[in-house]
Amino acid sequence: MTFVRPSGRASDQLREVRIERGFTRHAEGSVLVSFGDTRVLCTASVEGKVPSFLRGKGEGWVTAEYGMLPRSTHSRSDREAARGKQGGRTLEIQRLIGRTMRACVDRGALGERTIVLDCDVLQADGGTRTAAITGAYVALVDAVRWLQARREIARDPVYGAVAAVSVGVYQGMPVLDLDYAEDSACDTDMNVVMNDGGGFIELQGTAEGHAFRRTELDALLALAEKGIGELFAAQRAALTQP
Amino acid sequence: MTFVRPSGRASDQLREVRIERGFTRHAEGSVLVSFGDTRVLCTASVEGKVPSFLRGKGEGWVTAEYGMLPRSTHSRSDREAARGKQGGRTLEIQRLIGRTMRACVDRGALGERTIVLDCDVLQADGGTRTAAITGAYVALVDAVRWLQARREIARDPVYGAVAAVSVGVYQGMPVLDLDYAEDSACDTDMNVVMNDGGGFIELQGTAEGHAFRRTELDALLALAEKGIGELFAAQRAALTQP
Amino acid sequence: MTFVRPSGRASDQLREVRIERGFTRHAEGSVLVSFGDTRVLCTASVEGKVPSFLRGKGEGWVTAEYGMLPRSTHSRSDREAARGKQGGRTLEIQRLIGRTMRACVDRGALGERTIVLDCDVLQADGGTRTAAITGAYVALVDAVRWLQARREIARDPVYGAVAAVSVGVYQGMPVLDLDYAEDSACDTDMNVVMNDGGGFIELQGTAEGHAFRRTELDALLALAEKGIGELFAAQRAALTQP
Amino acid sequence: MTFVRPSGRASDQLREVRIERGFTRHAEGSVLVSFGDTRVLCTASVEGKVPSFLRGKGEGWVTAEYGMLPRSTHSRSDREAARGKQGGRTLEIQRLIGRTMRACVDRGALGERTIVLDCDVLQADGGTRTAAITGAYVALVDAVRWLQARREIARDPVYGAVAAVSVGVYQGMPVLDLDYAEDSACDTDMNVVMNDGGGFIELQGTAEGHAFRRTELDALLALAEKGIGELFAAQRAALTQP
Amino acid sequence: MTFVRPSGRASDQLREVRIERGFTRHAEGSVLVSFGDTRVLCTASVEGKVPSFLRGKGEGWVTAEYGMLPRSTHSRSDREAARGKQGGRTLEIQRLIGRTMRACVDRGALGERTIVLDCDVLQADGGTRTAAITGAYVALVDAVRWLQARREIARDPVYGAVAAVSVGVYQGMPVLDLDYAEDSACDTDMNVVMNDGGGFIELQGTAEGHAFRRTELDALLALAEKGIGELFAAQRAALTQP
Amino acid sequence: MTFVRPSGRASDQLREVRIERGFTRHAEGSVLVSFGDTRVLCTASVEGKVPSFLRGKGEGWVTAEYGMLPRSTHSRSDREAARGKQGGRTLEIQRLIGRTMRACVDRGALGERTIVLDCDVLQADGGTRTAAITGAYVALVDAVRWLQARREIARDPVYGAVAAVSVGVYQGMPVLDLDYAEDSACDTDMNVVMNDGGGFIELQGTAEGHAFRRTELDALLALAEKGIGELFAAQRAALTQP
Repeated sequence: MTFVRPSGRASDQLREVRIERGFTRHAEGSVLVSFGDTRVLCTASVEGKVPSFLRGKGEGWVTAEYGMLPRSTHSRSDREAARGKQGGRTLEIQRLIGRTMRACVDRGALGERTIVLDCDVLQADGGTRTAAITGAYVALVDAVRWLQARREIARDPVYGAVAAVSVGVYQGMPVLDLDYAEDSACDTDMNVVMNDGGGFIELQGTAEGHAFRRTELDALLALAEKGIGELFAAQRAALTQP
Repeated sequence: MTFVRPSGRASDQLREVRIERGFTRHAEGSVLVSFGDTRVLCTASVEGKVPSFLRGKGEGWVTAEYGMLPRSTHSRSDREAARGKQGGRTLEIQRLIGRTMRACVDRGALGERTIVLDCDVLQADGGTRTAAITGAYVALVDAVRWLQARREIARDPVYGAVAAVSVGVYQGMPVLDLDYAEDSACDTDMNVVMNDGGGFIELQGTAEGHAFRRTELDALLALAEKGIGELFAAQRAALTQP
Repeated sequence: MTFVRPSGRASDQLREVRIERGFTRHAEGSVLVSFGDTRVLCTASVEGKVPSFLRGKGEGWVTAEYGMLPRSTHSRSDREAARGKQGGRTLEIQRLIGRTMRACVDRGALGERTIVLDCDVLQADGGTRTAAITGAYVALVDAVRWLQARREIARDPVYGAVAAVSVGVYQGMPVLDLDYAEDSACDTDMNVVMNDGGGFIELQGTAEGHAFRRTELDALLALAEKGIGELFAAQRAALTQP
Repeated sequence: MTFVRPSGRASDQLREVRIERGFTRHAEGSVLVSFGDTRVLCTASVEGKVPSFLRGKGEGWVTAEYGMLPRSTHSRSDREAARGKQGGRTLEIQRLIGRTMRACVDRGALGERTIVLDCDVLQADGGTRTAAITGAYVALVDAVRWLQARREIARDPVYGAVAAVSVGVYQGMPVLDLDYAEDSACDTDMNVVMNDGGGFIELQGTAEGHAFRRTELDALLALAEKGIGELFAAQRAALTQP
Repeated sequence: MTFVRPSGRASDQLREVRIERGFTRHAEGSVLVSFGDTRVLCTASVEGKVPSFLRGKGEGWVTAEYGMLPRSTHSRSDREAARGKQGGRTLEIQRLIGRTMRACVDRGALGERTIVLDCDVLQADGGTRTAAITGAYVALVDAVRWLQARREIARDPVYGAVAAVSVGVYQGMPVLDLDYAEDSACDTDMNVVMNDGGGFIELQGTAEGHAFRRTELDALLALAEKGIGELFAAQRAALTQP
Repeated sequence: MTFVRPSGRASDQLREVRIERGFTRHAEGSVLVSFGDTRVLCTASVEGKVPSFLRGKGEGWVTAEYGMLPRSTHSRSDREAARGKQGGRTLEIQRLIGRTMRACVDRGALGERTIVLDCDVLQADGGTRTAAITGAYVALVDAVRWLQARREIARDPVYGAVAAVSVGVYQGMPVLDLDYAEDSACDTDMNVVMNDGGGFIELQGTAEGHAFRRTELDALLALAEKGIGELFAAQRAALTQP
């Protein structure tokens, strides 16, 4: 019997990745990233101030916010603004995005500025947080280029690149870049964030159903490494366009 | 001396209007509407229940929610979900959209269902509420067609069409469809919602600066009537596509 | 067949209007305004500071807050303080009152002060927002006189007068100053705010039921103009008393 | 040297007490109570349901809410609805009023109904909670009479009467019914709630400044007993009017 | 027939009182106080700033916060942090603790510092607020000793001692220090806070059921005086340990 | 040069672990767990109902809430109940604890009940979430034993055991069970949750500073495996006591 993913993809195959810069006009960086049917709008906004705990230290800050449009999902979710609070999942994801972006920024070189990365999911089909990280990095670079073009900063505060992908065990088989059909049925789900030096920035694995073994973990990390390599290529390709 | 609008448009000229159906996959109706650089994603979601005050009455409900992505604007606005409440302007606009949509729906024919219209501004350049109303109507029709295709409802609950445009007095001259440059500098700003029978659904005029006279009001209403006629044509054109 | 309003009033007849200054002691202006059974307590409070966006600009600010006592209505409404937020209708009305009051104040002449107009409905019978605007204007003038008596400001920052009335189409007939019985049954409801120079400050018309035509709009505006003229007379009479 | 209260009252003298029934129209009981310049509007609303913890037990409920209009005080206080929560003092007072009202109601005789007592301070000059209790009792009786007139309840659920007054040590002298000038300067402040059988319902004494001795406590209780006797007379007089 | 308390205690007998200093390491004062099965952790935290209304006045501030762990009670209560607000009872108690602590502190001698007393109930069996006050006083003294050991303050700002106990009428009999079994069944419940000079700081009596008479009040106060005397001894014993 | 941890521990050495059952009386399970100076009170509460999404399905639910007492930390943190919301870190941790507890429970065998695990940090010195998971498991078992003793459930719904530990790279060296001094200075921090079958339940690694390599990850996982083995022994020892 042959194993078949719902999408027909090979087990180590990403969905089609598209990174569209300049999707909206006002933001210093604005990227629509698609991992298949998952589409996230990532904007980078430069603000001339820092949070109070950093004031006067000559360092900058990078932070992120995340949201899903109410009908980005299969059935409509409540609007968090209407409910009056952001849910735990939302806070968890935006904290993750913020940390990973700070992991590739020299905050001293940024100066006393904040870059806010807003990641808003227009359409969800699994992997919104990994798409958001991959897209937010490109928006961040665009915002930094904008600062450099205006000669507001002397040297590039971004070192290396950061991208993310999900991996999981679906019907006993390790697979790359889970879509919603896989995500909602899989036993183990892991989000991996790496830099282009081959180092891990974040690793978040959860066993839903049966606990995963070291051998499965090793297989998942190998898949993630391969997929993230392809995402770095997609980021570079997008960033070399004018 | 000749009068010139910042955009170079004639005083009775709409911005380019685009209505793109099926912009996202999950919603029963999903429309990206553009009035020039103002872009609003309007989705219509069908839910099989009604608010408690209508339960058991055999009638449906139509409601709306509105939001702006934090960086849809020139400078970044706070995310309402993070602040923990929707602002007065947001509530005012979503109440307006909900009322205007209910104005063209026979709620008995809809049956005990709710259609929620989510209007999320991806990019703002003035006139977001009028674009939202114009686009939400198309999303509403698509959701109703979806119900009819599944034979869930017997007859079409939507009667007539509804569209909206802003008009205002800019540098002493009545103009149609204000963009941000005009909106932030004009004396009088009026939002007009009409149905395709030539009746007024909503009229909201505000004098910022000098109070407006009856003659100005008459000129503004004539402009609005012309512009809304063109919007009805754009809606019909969009809805005749497959 | 003769047309009869529930109250027996003529179609262009206001309810009895009473404007009682000095209703409470502490506020710089304190007015109990009655439009028939609708009674609103409007206080004007002078504060020696301005919102942060105006600080250091030498200009003042005028703002308003609105509330209904829980049992001002036929059946008890939730207390907004207990629910933990102000509803959309409340925010909409207080934004309206604030805008209309700013429309007759020279904020430079006011200096770096804020006047807060609190409009609290003691008893509701339709038209609370128009009564509130009409009464708040008188409280505003009293607060300004208080500032002048203490020689805190050199010249009067209030120019002209502002008053408001509702009009609507009730059983096919345009009528002036809707009470609750009419308001809850009418097809079209419009709130009109004017200044005493004959200019419109705000126009908010809503069709509940059938959309209104231009001829109806013209009739409603004529009624409003007549009614507001009488309200200006009532304001002047109240303000000439000691 | 003679001791003089700021108001010139004798140490055992209440302020002028007025109890005006039927102050507003919609509520089943509506009382404007004045203790001198302190004016509180107390409405009693009958609702045909009980909180969930009482459902199906055949018992009723009596509860209270309290609020101050923003400019009932010398300087304007924040509107609790706008701040998004009721303060500790507000909650403390409304819990007190609710408890004292329940202390004179046979909840079985009330049946599965709730009576909500809303006490809203129109003007504050010290003693708002004691005025509120004294007035709320009268509103409660009116609501019960309304139920009896409609033959909804068989026998009177109110037994006895309840009234309240404050006492305190002002400049070393025990005084009755503190006004704001005394309240803000006194060492000890005590609120006493009694029933007309001479029993204590609530006793809340606070030493601000020096702790009070047993002898002072005894003197204060004697003053309270005298004052509350006069308040019972005022309640009875008000309730015998038609 | 002999009267028996559920615990078998004599009517004037406290539960076993334990005061354990240094229960946790980080706080400047940290006391676990037990009144029988009621156990409250009281920490005192010194902060080098004061609330804005005191800034620049050379005075300090003492305040308190109170909470119950969700399962400190017989059945689990909602976590207030999860519900998003502190209940009325919580606010009432923490206001009480704060006032009583301020009643024995010379805020000038404290200097521009705040001492925050956090009273968290680990296990509840009646009398949590009186145990909290009794323990918080000891934590306060420890925090002041810490300030003195670091020579941050010149003289001791704490004068006298403060302790608290509950008394009540249980089955017609006045008893001291109510436990939960008594508290939930008694007619009258009174919390008494005294200083070691024999003065009353706070007196809060509530009749649940039948109103209490002067003679009962006198008996309750005598019991409280006796019990508080023993609590002062327990505080002194705890504070003389190293 | 020899590597020295601030505590003097060997790199693969846990802090002293204590698991004290029955710490409070009311909860069905109540455990005080200590990892050195980190002390967390974990209570398990059995409730006879399930969340609405599970109603009528014959399955149970297990969930967790987490909190820190304000002065459990070096400097006082705001009380979340007073701020009106739980922070992102809190929500993240309580979601983690809930997932890991559900990973060892057969929810069908539990029946329509909820077990709530409240993990409240009395004293924090790093590793509060791993201590909480390790202690909550013991409280969960006690709650299940309580259900079995009352014969409410037929078979044991808990399969296997779950425990957690943190590992990290401190000054270039992989170490086990970080305390606060290490945690606040380390480059990589990973929380590992395992079951006693050797499977991973959760893996959460974060690079603060430099990204970690596969070889470091392997070393960290080996340390975690060793430490968790010792924690399982401590849990078993605690659970065999009466």
